[in-house]
Amino acid sequence: MIFGQGKQPAQVVSILQRLTAEHPDRAVLATRCADDALRACTEEFGGRAQVDPLARTVVVGPWPTAFGRVAVVCAGTSDLPVARECATTVRAHGAETELVADVGVAGLHRLLARLEQIRAADAVVAVAGMEGALPSVLGGLVAAPLVAVPTSVGYGLSMDGTAALLAMLNSCAPGVTVVNVDNGYGAGVAAARIARTIGRLRAGEGAR
Amino acid sequence: MIFGQGKQPAQVVSILQRLTAEHPDRAVLATRCADDALRACTEEFGGRAQVDPLARTVVVGPWPTAFGRVAVVCAGTSDLPVARECATTVRAHGAETELVADVGVAGLHRLLARLEQIRAADAVVAVAGMEGALPSVLGGLVAAPLVAVPTSVGYGLSMDGTAALLAMLNSCAPGVTVVNVDNGYGAGVAAARIARTIGRLRAGEGAR
Amino acid sequence: MIFGQGKQPAQVVSILQRLTAEHPDRAVLATRCADDALRACTEEFGGRAQVDPLARTVVVGPWPTAFGRVAVVCAGTSDLPVARECATTVRAHGAETELVADVGVAGLHRLLARLEQIRAADAVVAVAGMEGALPSVLGGLVAAPLVAVPTSVGYGLSMDGTAALLAMLNSCAPGVTVVNVDNGYGAGVAAARIARTIGRLRAGEGAR
Amino acid sequence: MIFGQGKQPAQVVSILQRLTAEHPDRAVLATRCADDALRACTEEFGGRAQVDPLARTVVVGPWPTAFGRVAVVCAGTSDLPVARECATTVRAHGAETELVADVGVAGLHRLLARLEQIRAADAVVAVAGMEGALPSVLGGLVAAPLVAVPTSVGYGLSMDGTAALLAMLNSCAPGVTVVNVDNGYGAGVAAARIARTIGRLRAGEGAR
Amino acid sequence: MIFGQGKQPAQVVSILQRLTAEHPDRAVLATRCADDALRACTEEFGGRAQVDPLARTVVVGPWPTAFGRVAVVCAGTSDLPVARECATTVRAHGAETELVADVGVAGLHRLLARLEQIRAADAVVAVAGMEGALPSVLGGLVAAPLVAVPTSVGYGLSMDGTAALLAMLNSCAPGVTVVNVDNGYGAGVAAARIARTIGRLRAGEGAR
Amino acid sequence: MIFGQGKQPAQVVSILQRLTAEHPDRAVLATRCADDALRACTEEFGGRAQVDPLARTVVVGPWPTAFGRVAVVCAGTSDLPVARECATTVRAHGAETELVADVGVAGLHRLLARLEQIRAADAVVAVAGMEGALPSVLGGLVAAPLVAVPTSVGYGLSMDGTAALLAMLNSCAPGVTVVNVDNGYGAGVAAARIARTIGRLRAGEGAR
Amino acid sequence: MIFGQGKQPAQVVSILQRLTAEHPDRAVLATRCADDALRACTEEFGGRAQVDPLARTVVVGPWPTAFGRVAVVCAGTSDLPVARECATTVRAHGAETELVADVGVAGLHRLLARLEQIRAADAVVAVAGMEGALPSVLGGLVAAPLVAVPTSVGYGLSMDGTAALLAMLNSCAPGVTVVNVDNGYGAGVAAARIARTIGRLRAGEGAR
Amino acid sequence: MIFGQGKQPAQVVSILQRLTAEHPDRAVLATRCADDALRACTEEFGGRAQVDPLARTVVVGPWPTAFGRVAVVCAGTSDLPVARECATTVRAHGAETELVADVGVAGLHRLLARLEQIRAADAVVAVAGMEGALPSVLGGLVAAPLVAVPTSVGYGLSMDGTAALLAMLNSCAPGVTVVNVDNGYGAGVAAARIARTIGRLRAGEGAR
Repeated sequence: MIFGQGKQPAQVVSILQRLTAEHPDRAVLATRCADDALRACTEEFGGRAQVDPLARTVVVGPWPTAFGRVAVVCAGTSDLPVARECATTVRAHGAETELVADVGVAGLHRLLARLEQIRAADAVVAVAGMEGALPSVLGGLVAAPLVAVPTSVGYGLSMDGTAALLAMLNSCAPGVTVVNVDNGYGAGVAAARIARTIGRLRAGEGAR
Repeated sequence: MIFGQGKQPAQVVSILQRLTAEHPDRAVLATRCADDALRACTEEFGGRAQVDPLARTVVVGPWPTAFGRVAVVCAGTSDLPVARECATTVRAHGAETELVADVGVAGLHRLLARLEQIRAADAVVAVAGMEGALPSVLGGLVAAPLVAVPTSVGYGLSMDGTAALLAMLNSCAPGVTVVNVDNGYGAGVAAARIARTIGRLRAGEGAR
Repeated sequence: MIFGQGKQPAQVVSILQRLTAEHPDRAVLATRCADDALRACTEEFGGRAQVDPLARTVVVGPWPTAFGRVAVVCAGTSDLPVARECATTVRAHGAETELVADVGVAGLHRLLARLEQIRAADAVVAVAGMEGALPSVLGGLVAAPLVAVPTSVGYGLSMDGTAALLAMLNSCAPGVTVVNVDNGYGAGVAAARIARTIGRLRAGEGAR
Repeated sequence: MIFGQGKQPAQVVSILQRLTAEHPDRAVLATRCADDALRACTEEFGGRAQVDPLARTVVVGPWPTAFGRVAVVCAGTSDLPVARECATTVRAHGAETELVADVGVAGLHRLLARLEQIRAADAVVAVAGMEGALPSVLGGLVAAPLVAVPTSVGYGLSMDGTAALLAMLNSCAPGVTVVNVDNGYGAGVAAARIARTIGRLRAGEGAR
Repeated sequence: MIFGQGKQPAQVVSILQRLTAEHPDRAVLATRCADDALRACTEEFGGRAQVDPLARTVVVGPWPTAFGRVAVVCAGTSDLPVARECATTVRAHGAETELVADVGVAGLHRLLARLEQIRAADAVVAVAGMEGALPSVLGGLVAAPLVAVPTSVGYGLSMDGTAALLAMLNSCAPGVTVVNVDNGYGAGVAAARIARTIGRLRAGEGAR
Repeated sequence: MIFGQGKQPAQVVSILQRLTAEHPDRAVLATRCADDALRACTEEFGGRAQVDPLARTVVVGPWPTAFGRVAVVCAGTSDLPVARECATTVRAHGAETELVADVGVAGLHRLLARLEQIRAADAVVAVAGMEGALPSVLGGLVAAPLVAVPTSVGYGLSMDGTAALLAMLNSCAPGVTVVNVDNGYGAGVAAARIARTIGRLRAGEGAR
Repeated sequence: MIFGQGKQPAQVVSILQRLTAEHPDRAVLATRCADDALRACTEEFGGRAQVDPLARTVVVGPWPTAFGRVAVVCAGTSDLPVARECATTVRAHGAETELVADVGVAGLHRLLARLEQIRAADAVVAVAGMEGALPSVLGGLVAAPLVAVPTSVGYGLSMDGTAALLAMLNSCAPGVTVVNVDNGYGAGVAAARIARTIGRLRAGEGAR
Repeated sequence: MIFGQGKQPAQVVSILQRLTAEHPDRAVLATRCADDALRACTEEFGGRAQVDPLARTVVVGPWPTAFGRVAVVCAGTSDLPVARECATTVRAHGAETELVADVGVAGLHRLLARLEQIRAADAVVAVAGMEGALPSVLGGLVAAPLVAVPTSVGYGLSMDGTAALLAMLNSCAPGVTVVNVDNGYGAGVAAARIARTIGRLRAGEGAR
């Protein structure tokens, strides 16, 4: 994986070139790419690269066979960039992914309408900014492992996601685990590990 | 009102005596009374005092005529002391009150089962510790004015209620207002002012 | 309501168009609009839009009939943008509003001179940055429900409004409730709910 | 589960009695029990209760059949109470558990000597106070899902576990997820969910 | 001066004995004395000691001739211990002092009723906990040098006086200076230096 | 006084014009002026304005007669802008001022070399960033009233002057009072009030 | 080394017995021992143990040959426990030590009077609470490596030593390094390593 | 030394010119130079200046004879700027330096592979951002004095290096000392003092 933040476009392109040359059979993922880095990747790799300007991710190379499925659930449209970084990470780490967006707790019926779909997943990632209540509500409704991602979405004294992070760490729903603010990548790696192992076993393959 | 915290039993008793003598027609409320102060009030005032050891409140004198109704909703049993301090404050300030307990967001069906009752109130107070998500969920379900009270209930890095306070300040549900941690009294005064004015008008009396 | 912060001008315009088409009889409000979004709205909607560059708000469509009245009181001229966002929100949510500006506590006579006007309102919003003392002083002088809005106005260690927020949460005047820093919109929704219900009842209409 | 903190011995005993009567086939777990509550449980339940004074846990009733295995790894002997609360929680939620103690990062050889044992688990919980570095080092050495638990062990400006919590949230090892300070119970629930599902599938049973 | 906090009664007594022996013509002040230290001083020094159990101060030896006058103004009765520590310090450092108590900003008329008395002083100390608004209001009403003392009086998220401290540092009234939380001694020294110099000059003596 | 921060050049100029017209006999001070506001003042007022680009101050109109003297002492050259804002404020409020620069505590001999000059003042302002130690050292060396100004000068975890502010609030030298970070204006007003009163009395005039 | 905090007296004694049995030629150090643990050690080891009730340390076994010398300098008498813990640690790790007490920066002459003695050391440890200014002043006066120890001595908003810690991290004297609050042990180990290596080389022995 | 941050290119150049003129036999170091200051130095001094754009340092004049050796070890490539500022500072203060990069704790084998090289140094500087675990792991593996430098490298709630700083202050490895965030210069001065003294003695010269 390439952490694109703070890297020049030429650096991102050249690391992607080197890694895809070394591992031609594998999807290589770059995250947190700036606009000019995204453009440079589009110019260099063309159709070989999957560029997502909202998530700021670039993937080059073939997706791995997917085992298991992760539901990435997010509260508001402002949380979408983090949720999509997460979903792409999940897919690049070998699990199916499904994005369930705009199901914040202040509009409970929208969340309840999607519940069966979420319950069908092997692992769930809940992405939310503001007061970060989504994992607590979801935690009471699903039995699968649940990873919470606070986002820096908010205004006033949200302290760049600290309010949501604290809420998630203090969730009254047991079994919720948390990653750092805006860390869709970290949550994706964690959820993919879980879902992929479960999916392989269900498919009759060894655990790893 | 008497803020009992840090006061000696004899002090609490003597202020109550003075105030009830000055205002024999009014309920006088003491909050945050220590165990020995509660005992001293029971001994001194006997049946004239309503003593609540969980809420740590004492009321002496006749309740005012009640106008309007406030629903005090709380997430867990640990939040009950704050919720009851709030409910008693509401009643002492001239509004009806109704306590809806143990309806935390991780057990959503219990909250939804009480929804009609909550919706019937003129003002709602939502009391919650831990991640403080209750006001956000309620805020999407009720139209009445909603005051949120964070409590210091929690463990780990809940920082004595700061996590819940921040969550409530950052609520995605518009129109939620907040009081300080564990301040059931303050929320009760605010909610009673609103409900009582509405109730008086509905009863055909002047607003105040 | 449209939260304009972080949105492109074209996005703000298009959501306004959609919402006013869906609800032609209702005032649609956009807050926190950037300069270019304000210009885009003026160009698109012309006289149909009420654009306030100081408050950064845009309103399209007819105002609702107003019931009840909210006094929006602010300490300094630097607090005006938040106060006007609040006042416009109140009006868009169906209550009359009155802006009382430049009545900070260090110039007490100016505040006392406006007191009767403030006391006549059904709900009061107090907007202040710096040390956030205005709600405490007002709280001792008015009996109506009082919502406090801390602003990020200040310098040195004001910590983006945290000093004012903490002061308001710790107000010695009972019954003050608080919203997040600079959240004029949230205070406006809360105050309008209260005042409108009171106003409708006074006018002989049902509470909601 | 019973959260024993703040509860009277008689309360803990009576809730345990009620739950074991309702669910005679299930292990009921009480955590954070004070010394007198532990004694009361020993007196009441005798050999039927498994009381751990270090972890402050009580378990009454038969363990569930275990599927999958969780390695609970802790840095120092001071972290043992949290690690054992976690291990007991894992076992009560239906997975095998193995405690690997005293493998802090300042004595790297001890950790490396236990590595194969840790790598054999289906999920790993890393418990550490002070600087909280254990999950980062483990994260580079194991491929299984890894849950990190910061503890309040430390002195000077450790801020009751905040230093360890921040370190774990900022871990350079991807895929580490975190629970609140001293929350061995929460980490145990999360890890047991993962390991049990994997274990059931490996044993040829359905996932849940 | 003797800082009594953390000192044994015998230590406080023996330092007082030594200092009064060395300086028989001077008032020696001990602050922050525990109950047993106060009793030990009463036993040892009898009528020679002025012991104030509320302020936790002991003074042994003759007061210095006083020049100038300091008004020590405090918001609530809970702030009295700090205010009296301050007043005694002022007197021990050679200025007259006057205590104006219970003039919090939520009861503005009480403050205004004492204004002439406060305005007559050469320096003013304003002592307040909770939201710490008193210095801002006073700062707009008096022209003399004004020192603000935040106290740790409060509940909920007052953070041991930090809310009041921040409010005072952010006061909109220019020329307010601040000392640490509960530091009545420090404010007393500062105010006495100012008032004494002014008083000496007015009396026709040299400045120091 | 005009607080220039956040104001347009035209606004600063127009308020200055209005105030100097209303008070032609008085020095009017504007602080925190941006570069373009300073240029606009130079263009508008020419020789009538005293513009200090380092302190970001503008003064228009005749200085008041000065009574008393304030020494403004600063630790490093980076603290000069705050120190000069303070000195200009002192002069505009009617006291003499003297700037003693570059006398940080890590070069103690430079400070000691200027000591007599500092001791001759009626009030002292100590300006320092970084670790903010200057007031503590000065406090042991001078007897005059001492106001400390923390500055936001620093790097790493200085937290915009909080480190220096905390150091000054915790100074072991009694009688030090403190203003907010970078608040040279506030310290100047406070020190000028003290020095001017002393100076007037020494000159045989009334105190104010 | 034995970290005695939180350990039972019997535990401290038994670990000391085991370690001195394993290493009869070495001084074994226990720190942060409670009163009862200190008494238990005196009873058990008699004259073989060196017990320091102020520093809360116990040393059993022969001191190592000392090479090099460390000056442990502390600001106030309240800092002595940490300073002595440090000095004993230095001696137990094989360097000479010298304690220079009560040389706070507000009494500069006392510090300057001891300067030659401090300058003669191979490494210097500066221990200070309150505003933590001592290392900055010392840093400008000595050339040897300088380790700073903040202590939790203070009152008001000293935040348990955070004020001193921040001051030391922001010291304007280059080359100062810092350990955690009250960590006299850590500073002693660091300083002893430096001084011992220098001392051995000066004595003509190898560096370690 | 010249602290270039916030200085104009012409200022940096002119101070360098003055200092090299005064001390032609000595290396003069400027740190934290902006891009344009680096360019101005290259233009002015040409081959006489050693300009490092990554570390943002400029050195003019001859290096001092080096005694002793410092290993500067850093966790990730993002930490290189701070590590190289440190290494250049060490060299300019008269010790040899060796940079060991990209040996973060999540890739333990890379660190272990360089261990002998690190162990051969007279002093070690460990530079790390994110969770700041490197000094704890190194502290268990090397015996030389060890200075830790937290860097502001990280994302999410790393709080500009505070997470790494706290981790290093709480290191379980005794004898680690810490400097402020990103303060490669301070660590370099401290380490060079130690190594140079040791090196001189080893070379048979006097200690300083």
